[in-house]
Amino acid sequence: MRSVRVHLGERSYSISIGRGALGRLGQAAKRFFPGGRALVVTDRNVAPILGERVLRALGRGGCDASLCAVPAGERSKSLAQLSKLFDRLAALRIERGCGVVALGGGVVGDLAGFAAAAYLRGLPYIQVPTSLLALVDSAVGGKTAVDHKAGKNLIGAFYQPAAVIADVAALRTLPERHYRAGLAEVVKHAAIADPRLFSFLEKNAARVRRREAGVMERVVALNCRIKARVVEADEREAGVRETLNFGHTLGHAVEMLAGYSSSLYHGEAVAIGMAAAARLSVSAGKCGAPDAERLVALLERFGLPVALRKPPATAALRSALARDKKTRKGMPKFVLMDRIGSVTTGLEVPPSGWRAALAGGAPPAGGGS
Amino acid sequence: MRSVRVHLGERSYSISIGRGALGRLGQAAKRFFPGGRALVVTDRNVAPILGERVLRALGRGGCDASLCAVPAGERSKSLAQLSKLFDRLAALRIERGCGVVALGGGVVGDLAGFAAAAYLRGLPYIQVPTSLLALVDSAVGGKTAVDHKAGKNLIGAFYQPAAVIADVAALRTLPERHYRAGLAEVVKHAAIADPRLFSFLEKNAARVRRREAGVMERVVALNCRIKARVVEADEREAGVRETLNFGHTLGHAVEMLAGYSSSLYHGEAVAIGMAAAARLSVSAGKCGAPDAERLVALLERFGLPVALRKPPATAALRSALARDKKTRKGMPKFVLMDRIGSVTTGLEVPPSGWRAALAGGAPPAGGGS
Repeated sequence: MRSVRVHLGERSYSISIGRGALGRLGQAAKRFFPGGRALVVTDRNVAPILGERVLRALGRGGCDASLCAVPAGERSKSLAQLSKLFDRLAALRIERGCGVVALGGGVVGDLAGFAAAAYLRGLPYIQVPTSLLALVDSAVGGKTAVDHKAGKNLIGAFYQPAAVIADVAALRTLPERHYRAGLAEVVKHAAIADPRLFSFLEKNAARVRRREAGVMERVVALNCRIKARVVEADEREAGVRETLNFGHTLGHAVEMLAGYSSSLYHGEAVAIGMAAAARLSVSAGKCGAPDAERLVALLERFGLPVALRKPPATAALRSALARDKKTRKGMPKFVLMDRIGSVTTGLEVPPSGWRAALAGGAPPAGGGS
Repeated sequence: MRSVRVHLGERSYSISIGRGALGRLGQAAKRFFPGGRALVVTDRNVAPILGERVLRALGRGGCDASLCAVPAGERSKSLAQLSKLFDRLAALRIERGCGVVALGGGVVGDLAGFAAAAYLRGLPYIQVPTSLLALVDSAVGGKTAVDHKAGKNLIGAFYQPAAVIADVAALRTLPERHYRAGLAEVVKHAAIADPRLFSFLEKNAARVRRREAGVMERVVALNCRIKARVVEADEREAGVRETLNFGHTLGHAVEMLAGYSSSLYHGEAVAIGMAAAARLSVSAGKCGAPDAERLVALLERFGLPVALRKPPATAALRSALARDKKTRKGMPKFVLMDRIGSVTTGLEVPPSGWRAALAGGAPPAGGGS
């Protein structure tokens, strides 16, 4: 079992990482939910696999818990679904001192986290991530949100969990494509902050794809540490936290234009966005072609898409990006790569190059991929 | 012009109090909304009186502002209305660096404040209170919320404004009953924390009722100072902030059972709740009868109700209180008075006495009012 502490003053918390970490849930509930009751929010895919186990673990901690399973998928990150969770919390007479458990992937974590942030102006909540994306990224850092038709994650809160219980055994249960999509964020963390992790992933790509527990425990812990250090330095995304948006500018636009559908998973959109950002980094003269190629190659080894056959029109991309949360005065900001393990934030990139970069074509200047 | 600073570290802000304070809005917008755009949320009563003036003041600060007027009254504190504000913010392409102005009473401040807290995970907002209740209480302290059918203010955030512009000239425009209801919170602040303010109110009751600007500027400033000191000591309501709930335990229950209708204003419910709490304080042996009588007498001089002819049944009160945010393990906590200017929080009071206290009858033991 490994543990990573996120240092945020009175909002500090620990991430417990390992096989069987779920067993610690009872203890955590005893500590963080003195009111002795909790709502476990999950989705309909995860509920049959882990629901009962989680309720039993909470019961052992003296916590009387109920399960609420929302439909799986991004569409559950809606005000309508949030409103249903509030109804459920009210029906259970959840008081201050009671809590919420988010059992699932990024969608469940974001939705349940925001419900916890807003109900009674803030209930304690525990993240129990079950997807790779959630284990290495979304469960850590306190970003919670639902979507608006005008854009993803437009409505939410920065609200830190009381604890994160990261049981890598959950990875075994993920569908292949879903697991691969999560690897995009793993590659991202390595690309923005940790060249040694990047090399480790290159050397162990096959074992990572096979989800070998020992390797993944290490990968998850290193990822949580990267994420934790970034969040500590910039809890509310005023600066360095923006490095985490590497690949997310064009990635979000592409995801939005695909209608957040199962035709393109978030991680797949991020993979495409990172590959495009790497190409733009080369054409902007920020980064050498070999590093961009290493990034693209690793994504491909993880079975991730790195280009779109038919990228959206530039005008559609612009309009989608105008609604991005990070956009200021209408101009989206990009995170570009300096080299493996280092990025620069807040850069403007002429829209003329976006489409070609998404198509995977040679960038207009400065060498090709 | 008076100014009260609320010291909350990086979330500190100033309250500007005086006739014509509204003129400072342009300057404030320039400072806090560098993005140059804002949504002004108000209600349909305030919009025709102050809407244009506020838009002009913002325009002078280089801020391009749009007005959104919700129906007046507590029913606008709903998830449905909140959702409409999000639509409006999205349609205006409000980005980080743009902001929200809450122009109105407690309902508008709570609703617009929560919209600002949640949109893009937090936009800066400026409170421009126009009701007495908002001027002396709800605009300061960062409590934002909407209601749920299970209870008032169940969904919200602690989210501090960037500034409060408290123009006491707005008091002239309030309907008489509305103004009087606001005086309940003025009396509350004096009763829990400031015996000198209490005496000042007793001596100047007639001038206060006539809304004399000089007197009211002083009253508002003293109230803001009391509120600010409590919020500084306990931003997230873990302790001393609960003193502000004096009169709000039974008050909220009575208000909820009346269906948050115009038959009973919030301030009227609080006045009834304070009078009941004062009687319960005497019967519990916490407070001498003369102090309870002074409190009831001042409320009456301000034209406020101090009892219900037909109080709800004890079972109905219990059930309403079980849904109160401050309730722990099903037992509501009361704030009782020690003397004028001092209260004790976290007390349990046997339900058998609640109804009689609301009826204004002699309490079961320890002297009468």
